Amino acid sequence: MFELETTAVDCNARAGRLTTDHGVIETPIFMPVGTQATVKAVEQRELEELGAQIILGNTYHLYLRPGEEVLSTLGGLHKFMNWNRPILTDSGGFQVFSLQELRKITEQGVAFSSHVDGSKHLFTPERVVEIQRCIGSDIMMVFDECTPYPATYDYAKASMERSVRWAARCKEAEEYTMPRYGHRQFLFPIGQGSVYEDLRRDCMKHLVDLDMPGYAVGGLAVGEATDDMYRIVEISTAEMPVHKPRYLMGVGTPENILECVERGIDMFDCVMPTRNARNGQLFTTKGKMNLRNARYRLDEKPVDEAIDSYASRNFSRAYLRHLFNVDEILALQLASQHNIAFYLWLARTARQKIVAGEYRQWKRQFLEEYSSNSF
Amino acid sequence: MFELETTAVDCNARAGRLTTDHGVIETPIFMPVGTQATVKAVEQRELEELGAQIILGNTYHLYLRPGEEVLSTLGGLHKFMNWNRPILTDSGGFQVFSLQELRKITEQGVAFSSHVDGSKHLFTPERVVEIQRCIGSDIMMVFDECTPYPATYDYAKASMERSVRWAARCKEAEEYTMPRYGHRQFLFPIGQGSVYEDLRRDCMKHLVDLDMPGYAVGGLAVGEATDDMYRIVEISTAEMPVHKPRYLMGVGTPENILECVERGIDMFDCVMPTRNARNGQLFTTKGKMNLRNARYRLDEKPVDEAIDSYASRNFSRAYLRHLFNVDEILALQLASQHNIAFYLWLARTARQKIVAGEYRQWKRQFLEEYSSNSF
Repeated sequence: MFELETTAVDCNARAGRLTTDHGVIETPIFMPVGTQATVKAVEQRELEELGAQIILGNTYHLYLRPGEEVLSTLGGLHKFMNWNRPILTDSGGFQVFSLQELRKITEQGVAFSSHVDGSKHLFTPERVVEIQRCIGSDIMMVFDECTPYPATYDYAKASMERSVRWAARCKEAEEYTMPRYGHRQFLFPIGQGSVYEDLRRDCMKHLVDLDMPGYAVGGLAVGEATDDMYRIVEISTAEMPVHKPRYLMGVGTPENILECVERGIDMFDCVMPTRNARNGQLFTTKGKMNLRNARYRLDEKPVDEAIDSYASRNFSRAYLRHLFNVDEILALQLASQHNIAFYLWLARTARQKIVAGEYRQWKRQFLEEYSSNSF
Repeated sequence: MFELETTAVDCNARAGRLTTDHGVIETPIFMPVGTQATVKAVEQRELEELGAQIILGNTYHLYLRPGEEVLSTLGGLHKFMNWNRPILTDSGGFQVFSLQELRKITEQGVAFSSHVDGSKHLFTPERVVEIQRCIGSDIMMVFDECTPYPATYDYAKASMERSVRWAARCKEAEEYTMPRYGHRQFLFPIGQGSVYEDLRRDCMKHLVDLDMPGYAVGGLAVGEATDDMYRIVEISTAEMPVHKPRYLMGVGTPENILECVERGIDMFDCVMPTRNARNGQLFTTKGKMNLRNARYRLDEKPVDEAIDSYASRNFSRAYLRHLFNVDEILALQLASQHNIAFYLWLARTARQKIVAGEYRQWKRQFLEEYSSNSF
């Protein structure tokens, strides 16, 4: 499934190719988040135009709406949303465990009430694999607990150990079921263990024993210090097989992504580009920009000439600022397109620099420029 | 400015070409409404793709936001919103007169308070032309009162006579000012007179005396019976010069448009396609469809195969229904694109049928099919 092309000489950054039946993904890669069968405010053809190679879906949300009957009848998520490139699905663990008041956890699984209508449901590792078979994602994730932060050592240990047992059950469920739409589905397990190094190492060792096609690091970007995140990523990647893809879940800022690429991560997802876009915050090669700011009222410059997208190059900051100011939907569309274009540019450029042997140097220069400006 | 190509033999339907410095418009035409410098939820490149030949802007809204300084600095509305085809601007009369509590009307003009921040403003015929010079629309509209319905004969007469006087002042203001961005701007007057035939005739005769490049019918689709609308349109077009374009403001449903094409109207605008789209109501060649309806839950068919647009042909009704059901922005985007595609198809097909000498026959068949289905 994964072919390692280049490893940097002066750090752990890697360039690779991940092959699915819906196409090849060049890593490092950023995966736009399409929780409910759409990347918010962006059309599928626009995602293709922007160069998105893979997008995310969410098992919990898709299970509730549109639900398995619709997905199954319409031929799976790819066909349902008319997206023919790869899809990865979150297992729903993060969402189910976030339903503080609504859930009951046992060794068997998690009983919860829908945030939509209060109806009762049970997620087990087996059930979550079954749902992802119905969705038809190219990469399925195991059902785990995204350990909250902060967590005591004892809580983190028990939670991690349960996640490991659930990962093994997911793997078994995968082996006893078949893909439904004629394309392969890969299952990745997720490392947990909070900020405790020995738990993280133990967890990853257990998961590596399961011999899965790729490995994820979960439970980060949940409130811990940035240095803790980087330290845990380092520890986790050190335990991971070199020739399999590595996915850091839910991370993060442009800085986070570049630092974790340096530490050996291949795949990223985050709602930040689309969510921040809808709040008027744009990521640019010169730093972050708040488009609601009055300083852009008469600014004729495009958002970012360095980013080659319709939204980034064809409209003035003054026009985008106006659209946000009068609450127009087009503001959300153009800002989301730009931010996704920026994140994809970031991952693509990181890859080029790794291949060219200039990654760390470029990263340093880029972050200097990116952080020194405040718009 | 206008070249009449064909007139139907069995009715007053016409096909023509309206030439502006931003391009030629083939009539009959539907003009999508872009009140605040954007057609809601639709990108400018998508409007081009859909075949929109001209769009509308609104003087009142653009005057308040982004305002004249921004529009002027950014080079006018075309450049500001990156739209290089023709633009027509409403005069703002409709909006200002709608501010029931906020306005004071004199012979001079209308004093009103902004619906945005309560700030005080004065619109006079001269000022409204000046603002439209700043906007740079290809077709400017005179400042008038869109007479409310119902109106007494006396109110309608006084209101119409003031609108005629204001139209003359607008024409004078136009003659004493210059276009600001190097392209021509045409000024159209607006017929009023409520549902009173003699007032409508008188009004149009006065306006025809002003010798303007095109003529509009205003004050319809404000609550009057449909038959009254058609009757007033007939009376109005009978008074209008044959070799000038005729614009029916704010109308309407697909039926309304076809009936008024038959009565000699060339140009239409209406918020219906975009507003209804945002509520989940789609116009199709088989009738109206409410996409929020549960009956579409498993419907694999596209919205309308007869309409050649990205939104109309590439997504199932089940997918669109899901997007509305979970309040996703993409629902608004795709539905708006489809409805605009439908309205543009309607005007384009009307034109083809007029040229082919089959207009009335086609109209009858189309409306039979369109009205007999309920989705």
